Amino acid sequence: MAGSVFGTIFQISTWGESHGKGVGVTVDGCPAGIPLSETDIQQWLDRRKPGQSKFTTQRKESDRAEILSGVFEGKTTGTPIAILVRNTDQRSRDYKEIASYYRPGHADYTFDQKYGFRDYRGGGRSSGRETIGRVAGGAVAMQFLKVLGIDLFAYAKEIGGIKADPEKFSREVIMENAVFMPDMDAAAKAQVFLEQCMKEQDSAGGIIECVIRHVPAGLGDPVFEKLDAKLAAAVFSIGAVKGFEVGDGFAVARARGSENNDSFCKNNKKKTNHAGGILGGISDGSDIVFRAAIKPTPSISAVQETVNRDGEEISISIKGRHDPVIVPRAVVVVEAMAALTIADALLMGMGSRVDAVKEVYFR
Amino acid sequence: MAGSVFGTIFQISTWGESHGKGVGVTVDGCPAGIPLSETDIQQWLDRRKPGQSKFTTQRKESDRAEILSGVFEGKTTGTPIAILVRNTDQRSRDYKEIASYYRPGHADYTFDQKYGFRDYRGGGRSSGRETIGRVAGGAVAMQFLKVLGIDLFAYAKEIGGIKADPEKFSREVIMENAVFMPDMDAAAKAQVFLEQCMKEQDSAGGIIECVIRHVPAGLGDPVFEKLDAKLAAAVFSIGAVKGFEVGDGFAVARARGSENNDSFCKNNKKKTNHAGGILGGISDGSDIVFRAAIKPTPSISAVQETVNRDGEEISISIKGRHDPVIVPRAVVVVEAMAALTIADALLMGMGSRVDAVKEVYFR
Amino acid sequence: MAGSVFGTIFQISTWGESHGKGVGVTVDGCPAGIPLSETDIQQWLDRRKPGQSKFTTQRKESDRAEILSGVFEGKTTGTPIAILVRNTDQRSRDYKEIASYYRPGHADYTFDQKYGFRDYRGGGRSSGRETIGRVAGGAVAMQFLKVLGIDLFAYAKEIGGIKADPEKFSREVIMENAVFMPDMDAAAKAQVFLEQCMKEQDSAGGIIECVIRHVPAGLGDPVFEKLDAKLAAAVFSIGAVKGFEVGDGFAVARARGSENNDSFCKNNKKKTNHAGGILGGISDGSDIVFRAAIKPTPSISAVQETVNRDGEEISISIKGRHDPVIVPRAVVVVEAMAALTIADALLMGMGSRVDAVKEVYFR
Amino acid sequence: MAGSVFGTIFQISTWGESHGKGVGVTVDGCPAGIPLSETDIQQWLDRRKPGQSKFTTQRKESDRAEILSGVFEGKTTGTPIAILVRNTDQRSRDYKEIASYYRPGHADYTFDQKYGFRDYRGGGRSSGRETIGRVAGGAVAMQFLKVLGIDLFAYAKEIGGIKADPEKFSREVIMENAVFMPDMDAAAKAQVFLEQCMKEQDSAGGIIECVIRHVPAGLGDPVFEKLDAKLAAAVFSIGAVKGFEVGDGFAVARARGSENNDSFCKNNKKKTNHAGGILGGISDGSDIVFRAAIKPTPSISAVQETVNRDGEEISISIKGRHDPVIVPRAVVVVEAMAALTIADALLMGMGSRVDAVKEVYFR
Repeated sequence: MAGSVFGTIFQISTWGESHGKGVGVTVDGCPAGIPLSETDIQQWLDRRKPGQSKFTTQRKESDRAEILSGVFEGKTTGTPIAILVRNTDQRSRDYKEIASYYRPGHADYTFDQKYGFRDYRGGGRSSGRETIGRVAGGAVAMQFLKVLGIDLFAYAKEIGGIKADPEKFSREVIMENAVFMPDMDAAAKAQVFLEQCMKEQDSAGGIIECVIRHVPAGLGDPVFEKLDAKLAAAVFSIGAVKGFEVGDGFAVARARGSENNDSFCKNNKKKTNHAGGILGGISDGSDIVFRAAIKPTPSISAVQETVNRDGEEISISIKGRHDPVIVPRAVVVVEAMAALTIADALLMGMGSRVDAVKEVYFR
Repeated sequence: MAGSVFGTIFQISTWGESHGKGVGVTVDGCPAGIPLSETDIQQWLDRRKPGQSKFTTQRKESDRAEILSGVFEGKTTGTPIAILVRNTDQRSRDYKEIASYYRPGHADYTFDQKYGFRDYRGGGRSSGRETIGRVAGGAVAMQFLKVLGIDLFAYAKEIGGIKADPEKFSREVIMENAVFMPDMDAAAKAQVFLEQCMKEQDSAGGIIECVIRHVPAGLGDPVFEKLDAKLAAAVFSIGAVKGFEVGDGFAVARARGSENNDSFCKNNKKKTNHAGGILGGISDGSDIVFRAAIKPTPSISAVQETVNRDGEEISISIKGRHDPVIVPRAVVVVEAMAALTIADALLMGMGSRVDAVKEVYFR
Repeated sequence: MAGSVFGTIFQISTWGESHGKGVGVTVDGCPAGIPLSETDIQQWLDRRKPGQSKFTTQRKESDRAEILSGVFEGKTTGTPIAILVRNTDQRSRDYKEIASYYRPGHADYTFDQKYGFRDYRGGGRSSGRETIGRVAGGAVAMQFLKVLGIDLFAYAKEIGGIKADPEKFSREVIMENAVFMPDMDAAAKAQVFLEQCMKEQDSAGGIIECVIRHVPAGLGDPVFEKLDAKLAAAVFSIGAVKGFEVGDGFAVARARGSENNDSFCKNNKKKTNHAGGILGGISDGSDIVFRAAIKPTPSISAVQETVNRDGEEISISIKGRHDPVIVPRAVVVVEAMAALTIADALLMGMGSRVDAVKEVYFR
Repeated sequence: MAGSVFGTIFQISTWGESHGKGVGVTVDGCPAGIPLSETDIQQWLDRRKPGQSKFTTQRKESDRAEILSGVFEGKTTGTPIAILVRNTDQRSRDYKEIASYYRPGHADYTFDQKYGFRDYRGGGRSSGRETIGRVAGGAVAMQFLKVLGIDLFAYAKEIGGIKADPEKFSREVIMENAVFMPDMDAAAKAQVFLEQCMKEQDSAGGIIECVIRHVPAGLGDPVFEKLDAKLAAAVFSIGAVKGFEVGDGFAVARARGSENNDSFCKNNKKKTNHAGGILGGISDGSDIVFRAAIKPTPSISAVQETVNRDGEEISISIKGRHDPVIVPRAVVVVEAMAALTIADALLMGMGSRVDAVKEVYFR
């Protein structure tokens, strides 16, 4: 509850700093009987790995996942699944200077205020490496969803103002470009823009969209545990996220009721999906669609004003290897958080009807 | 955990349907020694009460709060504070028809899918009356924040596309117009727009903004319990919310790092506040600012297509007394959820340094 | 989490002091579709009501349960069930003196230390009236268990050293004697003993035993959420409980492994049940059996030494209407806590196998 | 919540099976600024290590603790502390036979019922090795308590019916005998008794007592989160515990109120401590004293009756290296669970008075 545990039944506990011995996650509450191997986890970690293109940091992070417990004869046992990734490419020498001042847009100042001091090496616990635990845990959740036939994926919808055209949407191309856009033309433009950013020692933001298909109707609870509220918390817990919306999102502020309401038709389908698959906080069986706004990478080489720990105003220029945009690497983190949320909602909601309880225990 | 409990230490449990005997809340974990009376709660409930203007439903809901426990000699005792509001103006006869079909934009279908049946009278648990418990609980949280000097308020930022002009912002006028806007000109235009909506048997959406001042730096936790993630969950749990953003929000997607980073200056202040008062999920001592997008009221009198419970496609026209816009009445609900979130974050974070623990117990 | 909420999915939140306006409970997470009426709850409350015999306080507490929400057309809807019991027979004048000193064996001193002051009337939140919320919540849990065919009951096993003889055990006679013993001879002796206690202005303790039949094998979790650990917490949360044991309990300390192990036989039954129905923290399908040790009522009329709030040593004699023994009235409270624990364990454990998840959502 | 997470703010998450790659724990919510090294943890692990005397299994388990995160420059940072212990001395070949049947007194049958299958090697997650995570986590809690001046220790009070004489109590000798008794004479007798048990291929049980000194008054909450209820859950979650009592425990069932009440005297001290340091669920500042009953080791070499997975009745004799008594090695596990409980109660209770909240945040 002090911040590194997520979920109630399907629950993960992550740990690890940028420059400690490693990072990892323990998944508790995963149902027994789900096929799981280190390869299943590795393929997810590889998608968040830096160094894949010129738009991601050139640090080499091999990030090998080791499953330490909870899997027996290739299947989850129902007991905790611990996953460890050793840190390898840390260079503490890069970070000595950072210890002395507060980087704009970073958590240096707030960590000092909260804890009295901080592990300043590479951002410590607020480093992007923290997301490895999320992704490894999300990989386990994804295996669970796969067994149930639930399909979940995300992509870059917009980078630095360049939008993927919905008309040109192709799921297949997402993994085929360096910025994970579903539209190759937009991806090409975004890459040109990012090169310009880098030249200017600056960084860019963007928007990630996530779609979840084949979620059964009835997930989520009516009041505080609405499925969209849980997704909001999950996604907003990713560093750099500054906005979250479901379905038509902020556009509803300018819509009329007659436009925004989705009519039901045969087989309880909806003719449109302005709601983004959730009504009254509960999944309605149509696609769940949400978006997250990602801020520009705060670490930039351009000169910035700030103060040091003694309160003196200074100018700094952040050295080191940083992504000019976080969006592409955050795509898989958004998927992970969404998968974890759906997995937990499935387990939490099994007993919403007494008949289901009877069926599970007293067949 | 099945949905009607919010918070960890400062924890509320709400209950009640539109047409049951009443609605209410129990506040557990409120510190002892805070002045609290029924009047303190009533003034908040009065702000969400319908029938205050022509833009809110003309139902009469007296909504008198009765404190049943947890207060002794005018102060909170540290034990649960139960607050009861009896339902009075229910007319079940209005709702018989609704039982037979699924209203577009409502939770009728998803409740049936989740629970097998539903209390169809007035929306049951998914009625707007559910928010009375939130507001009453939020009133208690507000008393707590007031003792600490924390200042929290919200207002309508935008209705049907009409925006309050930041240049004309006046906190004083918020409560002086029917739509709770901080700009009287915009408020006047919004009211003209809403009258048009009503004539057309339609409804409108909008945006609520909330500002929290004098929050100490250091609230919130680094990973899953980021303060913004908690606010996101809190605000997204309000029915009709479809988007949430902090600070510059979705605009960061188009900003550069050099623009979006807030430089620190003397006294650890920031020169700008694009971040909205939260860095790395932890409050930085500047104003916390967030916005929520509210969808148009789904209940409209215009004819709509839908299906009945037998799966037949039908046309309906929703009768009854409904708000043409939810925004004004939702302002106080947003304040309540924000107050509850900050109250809980304060109590959860007291032991982040071992020195504070020593001080509290071993002075 | 500040103390008045119990359970994770099947979760109750209780509130109320002895001399406030009332006491009550909200049950969240109860599955939809369970028959429930005020009569179902009332019969449980009647069993804890004082004034039923000369061995319980002669205060008149009518304790009428009113269901305020969560039930529609005679069945639970899956949303929160709020239950209210108004306080009626409070006489605050009796308690003015108590405000000034710390009664031995009571929570007066510890409340003052924790909260800085206390509602001294009738014990406030630490009054026995607090258990009304537990019993009303337990009544709902009991209805749930009944639908599933689970049978749960408790009785006085021992009072003031007088033990019910297992050879003479009769479930039928439990409700037919004033001390709720399953053996009429022991009950008669216990009553003679209690009359002697009363004459001597003193009080007695005892032991309650609880049996739960037809619990499916597989409930509870392997490590911290062992079913017996949950029962221990549930039962130890009842004021006056000072010991808890499962199966052979403390007697195992003197047993050999060869005696204590229960051999399995045909149909996976066990030949004996030293374990009390739980192996490795998980139910094994045989009867769950546990016992709780109840201390003598701390409120006695005999003269006692203590200190007042100014720290001066004084002699006191507690006036008022008090039970010479708590055991009989605590029987139904033990049943309530056990029912709540089993109800929650059932809902928490539904997804322990992935096949069950598939079955519930994707039949 | 699926069983391997303990605590709310000071929260541990344990993982690992007997014959997996390792076992471990993540401690989340530990305050920043507490000195912590691997040596601090190792000394606790060494106390639960087998092979220390002839009364513990002769398996060699080196059990080296490695801190992977959460400590910087010798102090806790407030972020998660992950601790890993690699498994080394596993011999899976010993356990093939066990896969086919259900050992009496073990969790084999209940795991199969819950999860559909089990990791049968060495008991899997229900192995005694599971307690390594508890002890490592407890070591961190102990460092926290040490900074605050809280003193916590446990010992064997009774083994196989042989009791430590309170008159001969010496804290110093606890660690000087193989059975961790505070009375050398009783320890000598217990060892003779255990040798006899081993000759007879049988095992013995016992009682552990724990004392906690210098706990501030005011810890714990009035209703469900009573400090004794939390200790009960903590201690009962240790495998083999079948009974738990506080202060006079089960003996209160035979006491009178006049005997059992502890009179207050000067400085709010109590003349006696029948209550065991807890009144109304809240610590009263005197020593907290509790006891746990430990069952005889279920693994014995003597012939036992049981069934195999096909339901056939068979005779078995359990081979392998097993402790004839669990008590001595469980002493440190009881200490760990007690330390974790007190640590969490301290952090949960900091805001019970609004004045304390002001002090921590607005000095």
